[in-house]
Amino acid sequence: MNDKVDQYFSKERIHHLEQLSALLRIASISALSAHKADMGQAAEWIADALTQAGLEHVAIMPTKGNPVVYADYLHSPGKPTVLIYGHYDVQPVDPLDLWDNDPFDPTIRDGKIYARGASDDKGQVFMHIKAIEALLKTTHALAVNVKFCIEGEEEIGSVHLPLFVEEQKALLAADVLVISDTTMLGPNAPAICYGLRGLCGLQIDVQSAKSDLHSGLYGGAVPNALHGLVELLATMHTKEGAVAVQGFYDDVVPLTDDERKELASLPHDDEEYRKGLGLPSLFGEPGYSTVERYMARPTLELNGVYGGFQGEGTKTVIPARAHAKITCRLVNNQDPVHIIELIEEHVKSHTPVGVTAKVTRFDTGRPFVTSFDSAAIRSAAKAYEVGFGVKPYYMRMGGSIPIVEVFDRVLHIPVVLMGFGLPDENFHAPNEHFSLDNFDRGLRTLAYYYEHLDTI
Amino acid sequence: MNDKVDQYFSKERIHHLEQLSALLRIASISALSAHKADMGQAAEWIADALTQAGLEHVAIMPTKGNPVVYADYLHSPGKPTVLIYGHYDVQPVDPLDLWDNDPFDPTIRDGKIYARGASDDKGQVFMHIKAIEALLKTTHALAVNVKFCIEGEEEIGSVHLPLFVEEQKALLAADVLVISDTTMLGPNAPAICYGLRGLCGLQIDVQSAKSDLHSGLYGGAVPNALHGLVELLATMHTKEGAVAVQGFYDDVVPLTDDERKELASLPHDDEEYRKGLGLPSLFGEPGYSTVERYMARPTLELNGVYGGFQGEGTKTVIPARAHAKITCRLVNNQDPVHIIELIEEHVKSHTPVGVTAKVTRFDTGRPFVTSFDSAAIRSAAKAYEVGFGVKPYYMRMGGSIPIVEVFDRVLHIPVVLMGFGLPDENFHAPNEHFSLDNFDRGLRTLAYYYEHLDTI
Repeated sequence: MNDKVDQYFSKERIHHLEQLSALLRIASISALSAHKADMGQAAEWIADALTQAGLEHVAIMPTKGNPVVYADYLHSPGKPTVLIYGHYDVQPVDPLDLWDNDPFDPTIRDGKIYARGASDDKGQVFMHIKAIEALLKTTHALAVNVKFCIEGEEEIGSVHLPLFVEEQKALLAADVLVISDTTMLGPNAPAICYGLRGLCGLQIDVQSAKSDLHSGLYGGAVPNALHGLVELLATMHTKEGAVAVQGFYDDVVPLTDDERKELASLPHDDEEYRKGLGLPSLFGEPGYSTVERYMARPTLELNGVYGGFQGEGTKTVIPARAHAKITCRLVNNQDPVHIIELIEEHVKSHTPVGVTAKVTRFDTGRPFVTSFDSAAIRSAAKAYEVGFGVKPYYMRMGGSIPIVEVFDRVLHIPVVLMGFGLPDENFHAPNEHFSLDNFDRGLRTLAYYYEHLDTI
Repeated sequence: MNDKVDQYFSKERIHHLEQLSALLRIASISALSAHKADMGQAAEWIADALTQAGLEHVAIMPTKGNPVVYADYLHSPGKPTVLIYGHYDVQPVDPLDLWDNDPFDPTIRDGKIYARGASDDKGQVFMHIKAIEALLKTTHALAVNVKFCIEGEEEIGSVHLPLFVEEQKALLAADVLVISDTTMLGPNAPAICYGLRGLCGLQIDVQSAKSDLHSGLYGGAVPNALHGLVELLATMHTKEGAVAVQGFYDDVVPLTDDERKELASLPHDDEEYRKGLGLPSLFGEPGYSTVERYMARPTLELNGVYGGFQGEGTKTVIPARAHAKITCRLVNNQDPVHIIELIEEHVKSHTPVGVTAKVTRFDTGRPFVTSFDSAAIRSAAKAYEVGFGVKPYYMRMGGSIPIVEVFDRVLHIPVVLMGFGLPDENFHAPNEHFSLDNFDRGLRTLAYYYEHLDTI
């Protein structure tokens, strides 16, 4: 690897961590409208960082939602153009009391930086900016052309990005798309991801009486919205753990024997996995291994259920309203909108007597699978070897980056998913963090990648 | 009825409503420890009102929880002594956004006073104080001896009152216990209650992983605390609406044919009842009428269920913790502690794979049934006839006043449950209110009752 670049990262390390901390301090939670101002602030921060890195045509481009930050450096005519995608928005932080530090007050402990967005995805976006910066500051040139497209709505399903990509097709034109928003398989086990699950989400609102009722005066004679919701939700899975919504699995492309063999070869130990998560036991769809279940099988997950009294002690109330938030992870060829329709049908046919149930649809994203036999991916594998000293694995990811499928469909270019997070870094949960060891190695991996991608 | 007393109520009406409003402004929520200071303030308010009414030996008597307010007027030797019980604590107010006014800013609309505690039970306690006051101020004597015992923990199961009653047995000795904490059957349909349901409560805490997990990275391979809780809760009732906990009904004394005939004679119309509550349909234990279900059959009710994300939109999280709050209404001869044990057994044997479930027990109260053929009850019926112009019904109540069973057991005196609330006045729910018409008639009913009870 280029010594000057390596020295640049070493010399700038403290400065880089200060900069990353400043970015992590911005509470850019896209799901909560109260954080609208933070979204703008985060976009500006990214734009400033791109400018300081030496990129050009830096622009905060409006959408009907949060803006997209664009920048480019196009001084290598005849060489490939890399489009770098990432996001500056983060997940909500509740339950706040389970965090060991304020989620927006980044704290370094045991070689890890703790903050919401540390790994998903601010930390990884920051690394791409710094990799380009290091090359520009030390070699004063880039071997490839680069374009950045950093959005602010990934955590709410990239609501406005598909239209943006369609409209800005020419601006975003490139030869390869690179994204760091997936994880490695484990410490010192980097991985290139060739498949992502899709996503659809909905909310169910159950209502019984027009208002809450006293359980003494009415109890026994009237329906309870919570009973109705609980009974309805319990019908959505079999006791064994499969999804029980009719037609849910109909469009799933079965795993081939070859792919099952490959997934079985990934380093994984059920008992270690169970212990690491503090679980009494593992649980999931019968007939599939743990790795298959979280990488390559679809799910229906309750993300939130609530109704009635949540305070200390008891309240003898019959709740009139109860709510459930559900998201599904989907695999090829499930269609997210069709899956929502199937769930709506299920809700309609399973709503218990005495209550009504209303469904509100949320964001959707299609699943994605690509071939991992492209020059761009082979280059990424080589870069990992240099940065980490080991060959990367090829894996599918259970997570969803719905926009990947849009880029794939609109721009028709190979997609390289090279992540640097670890699966246990609490993406979307309290105490999200990012390994500084992987941060350091990742910077070098990316710099090497951008320096050698001209050989595509 | 005594004209002077009648005129007193008319003259003082505005003043009385101002006083009642002052009491209702005190947020004496016993379930929430943040309201500790309000509990003391409410006790002092009651003590002051009793003093101003002309009562003697007014005392705020400590317990290990909230204090009991005691007062008496014992100047009729040889005449009966009436013990008046009520409570100055109120239920929590959430969901706050469903209230049309601040629950602690009493508002009069359409002849009703809206505030938490308006009918349960501050309004009714206030009426007893004012009935005695009216007699003392106008006739300067009482035909009976009276003792007040107003507690501050009824809404949390009268935790410390049983011990207080045992210890103060001599102080509280009386010939009859009068309580206004039940309801009438409907407008212009006063009722004397001869039975109350018992109560037990518990919380179930379900845990899966040690922390929340990302539904993309883990979804499908790990248990979800909400799935576990929902599946567990769904086993607690049959689809038809009966409680499915083994042994739950074993100790229930079946309704006699006579009692079923009597309950069937109460004015009730299912369709009107359903419409009034805004329900798609009624629902309850098969084989029983609506009136039987809410007056004389036991229940198991979900009062609160919560876990995971409750904000706007979606959050793709697998919640690690989920919670349910449950209370049961019980009838003779169900033992509240035994019922909790049965539910604990049920939880143990129905906890789904992959999660653990912990049960925390809350307050209990035994059910109560009395004969309605006592002189004290016949006097109450006569007083209703004078105050309301109609004979009262005799009914059982689905609610629980656990302390009634304690008074019954320790003091061995007849209990008269004469309520003035209406069933649709939103006890324990948003927009609790109290009819001022029933307030006015009730004052006269109570004054008549205390004036003529010497004929027991």
